[in-house]
Amino acid sequence: MPDKKQLHLTAFMRPVSLHTGAWRYPGAYPDANFNLKHLISFIQSLEAAKFDAFFMADHLAVLNMPLEALKRSHTVTSFEPFTLLSALSQVTTHIGLAATASTTYDEPYHIARRFASLDHLSGGRAAWNIVTTGNPESSKNFGRDEHVEHGERYKRAREFYDVVTGLWDSFADDAFPRDPESGVYVDPEKIHVLNHKGDELSVKGPLNIARPVQGWPVIVQAGQSEPGRQLAAETAETVFCGPRDIEAAKALYQDIKGRAEAVGRNPNHLKILPAALVIIGDSVEDAQEKRLKLDSLVHYDSAISSLSIALGTDASKYDPDAPLPKDIPETNASKTSREGVINLAAKEGLTVRQLASRLGGYSGLAFVGTPETVADEFEQWLNEEAADGFTITFPFLPEGLENVTKRLIPELQRRGVFRKDYEGTTLREHLGLPRPKNRFFT
Amino acid sequence: MPDKKQLHLTAFMRPVSLHTGAWRYPGAYPDANFNLKHLISFIQSLEAAKFDAFFMADHLAVLNMPLEALKRSHTVTSFEPFTLLSALSQVTTHIGLAATASTTYDEPYHIARRFASLDHLSGGRAAWNIVTTGNPESSKNFGRDEHVEHGERYKRAREFYDVVTGLWDSFADDAFPRDPESGVYVDPEKIHVLNHKGDELSVKGPLNIARPVQGWPVIVQAGQSEPGRQLAAETAETVFCGPRDIEAAKALYQDIKGRAEAVGRNPNHLKILPAALVIIGDSVEDAQEKRLKLDSLVHYDSAISSLSIALGTDASKYDPDAPLPKDIPETNASKTSREGVINLAAKEGLTVRQLASRLGGYSGLAFVGTPETVADEFEQWLNEEAADGFTITFPFLPEGLENVTKRLIPELQRRGVFRKDYEGTTLREHLGLPRPKNRFFT
Repeated sequence: MPDKKQLHLTAFMRPVSLHTGAWRYPGAYPDANFNLKHLISFIQSLEAAKFDAFFMADHLAVLNMPLEALKRSHTVTSFEPFTLLSALSQVTTHIGLAATASTTYDEPYHIARRFASLDHLSGGRAAWNIVTTGNPESSKNFGRDEHVEHGERYKRAREFYDVVTGLWDSFADDAFPRDPESGVYVDPEKIHVLNHKGDELSVKGPLNIARPVQGWPVIVQAGQSEPGRQLAAETAETVFCGPRDIEAAKALYQDIKGRAEAVGRNPNHLKILPAALVIIGDSVEDAQEKRLKLDSLVHYDSAISSLSIALGTDASKYDPDAPLPKDIPETNASKTSREGVINLAAKEGLTVRQLASRLGGYSGLAFVGTPETVADEFEQWLNEEAADGFTITFPFLPEGLENVTKRLIPELQRRGVFRKDYEGTTLREHLGLPRPKNRFFT
Repeated sequence: MPDKKQLHLTAFMRPVSLHTGAWRYPGAYPDANFNLKHLISFIQSLEAAKFDAFFMADHLAVLNMPLEALKRSHTVTSFEPFTLLSALSQVTTHIGLAATASTTYDEPYHIARRFASLDHLSGGRAAWNIVTTGNPESSKNFGRDEHVEHGERYKRAREFYDVVTGLWDSFADDAFPRDPESGVYVDPEKIHVLNHKGDELSVKGPLNIARPVQGWPVIVQAGQSEPGRQLAAETAETVFCGPRDIEAAKALYQDIKGRAEAVGRNPNHLKILPAALVIIGDSVEDAQEKRLKLDSLVHYDSAISSLSIALGTDASKYDPDAPLPKDIPETNASKTSREGVINLAAKEGLTVRQLASRLGGYSGLAFVGTPETVADEFEQWLNEEAADGFTITFPFLPEGLENVTKRLIPELQRRGVFRKDYEGTTLREHLGLPRPKNRFFT
């Protein structure tokens, strides 16, 4: 048992970097999001550094940016998460494999099955990032003209979670005697038929796959809106959130852990892992210069589209050199994102162009410094209960990733706040999470 | 160019053997359908034998057999095909990877994306077995009380195919310049927005993944009913059918190839690969004894459930030692299966018990003999235009599979009717199929 609190670290891949300029950075692999060889090298580096998990984000559409602006973006197209993570499960042995899957435009039977299968294939390393789909373009790829409204999406998500976890519990852990002598393969007394009939979903069951190795794959949540926080408190085991600074992070940490306790959960079984861009340099100035160089590679076309996505409205119609207008219309796009952008513009007095450039690169929480200064900050966040670890996104790859795995991680290990080797073989073991009991069988 | 007509061979896995007694056969791995290690050894043996493809069948429910009868069945639960084949793509280099995916209870955007991703991950080895879901239990796992009616399913399947192939053509093959200098990642002139609005489906597009390596993954079809044959003739590139003997196979071969020509297709670009159980022995008698031993491992519980599934009605209510009653009700289950069973019972004058035992094991086309006698039969089918090859199901594993890969295959290679090495790297190259042109870009 280590004597210091331990950090948990996951790598957030979309599918490589979230930063729009990343593919143009010197030494980057422009084709990395379609070249499996590169993704294999990234995940193997992360596993060698003992990361908890590799986290594949997702969208169900080409994002709603103008076609002309699309041309700058390397995040438009990539592998689909289930297929990618299943492939990566065979070139790794320990690192967790987290996939985003939407509750808005998919079926709980499919989702339950694919995660259970990934968990079996990987020996207990799967995690499900439960999202509702807030991109209005997605609805049009799934037969709907109108996007599903925000509250409705969360209502369905909550029920979807109940159905998926219920399906995972279809079979007792010891349901399969597989005895060639008697000819009994499965014990029918140890199969539960769910027979779920709710407001949103009707699913009979049982699932046609044995209970996952981990009981349930680890549940990940990202929402920060009111229904998003409540859903996280009730269901999540790791929360991937985006506080703007340590004070906001502490408030969010207290809020979500408090809500979890209020619904009878052990708050230690919910890990808060804020998303953060990490840039490591030889000095703080060197790291800051790398960030400036990276941001300079974002074209205004991309910048303005990112702003349009965040606001849920076409921002190219605004005067680039004037402040953001006051009358941004409310839409069905993510409320959290829209409000964050409006607050950022007001707080820092940014013009549309300045705001767009920030968003077009990466506008969220960032740690920019040396291995020592970033490790100091990580320890502070950990010890002051602002975070249980981080969901790290890399500025550019392979260099930015290697700076983390080969320079920051050894510093964290030296300080005794990050593992030198995996404690177990499943993602639940890495995260210190219990294996859920089967609700239908003891 | 080989001077003899060449056989194409795919391995039909569900997920191991279709034969209900297979897991009890001496030397079998009872847990093979959940033990990836065994599946890896099977696919690597098949690749070493130069099989065209590994074909993972699928169901969207635990089959509608009584719970008490379920207990005998090893086919109830296994890995999900997309996740399994993606994992297997990383432990193989050439063999094709065919997955069944239903058009009845899934969305074309998801299906198009997952197959495109599998095709990219595997370097051009994916195939899509287009099915409509005929198991009435499946509807209840997808929010419907009533099963979708047979004609309606085929109407949706046809339109679903148009949408999926249209989405695969979202990007021109040269859509991605990825030029770090100019900052142009994708050429917006080379992106097509599908904007499909049909009777059954409404899908905007574009797909958020580059065009598959093969242009389109290979299209596989299994239907034998009237709408199934027509769908195959219009869309399939390999047909996995179940004729009862060589005469029926010739008729089916002519019919489907004729229908393909009638709609303007090159009949050589549609390969007919009947499903067949293959049992190889030291002598014909030895092979027949193996089959009898295998059938003896099927319990009557399983046998009678198989009959119930095939008929779409509970057969356990019939007198086991009397002929099949005349008044079997029509249901929404597969018509082909129901009619085949009724005809088989009438033709051979079987009692309910005899019929059930046949169905509980494997009642379809079987080749049972020595490497020489089975190779003779394969050559006859090939040369008399009854088949372009076979979709082989193994009676038990590993022995039954190794008897094919290590004894039958070398005999076929010696005769010059099966490849000694792969001609290319993609499944289309193995099958001699052209890469489809992009309908939106030249």
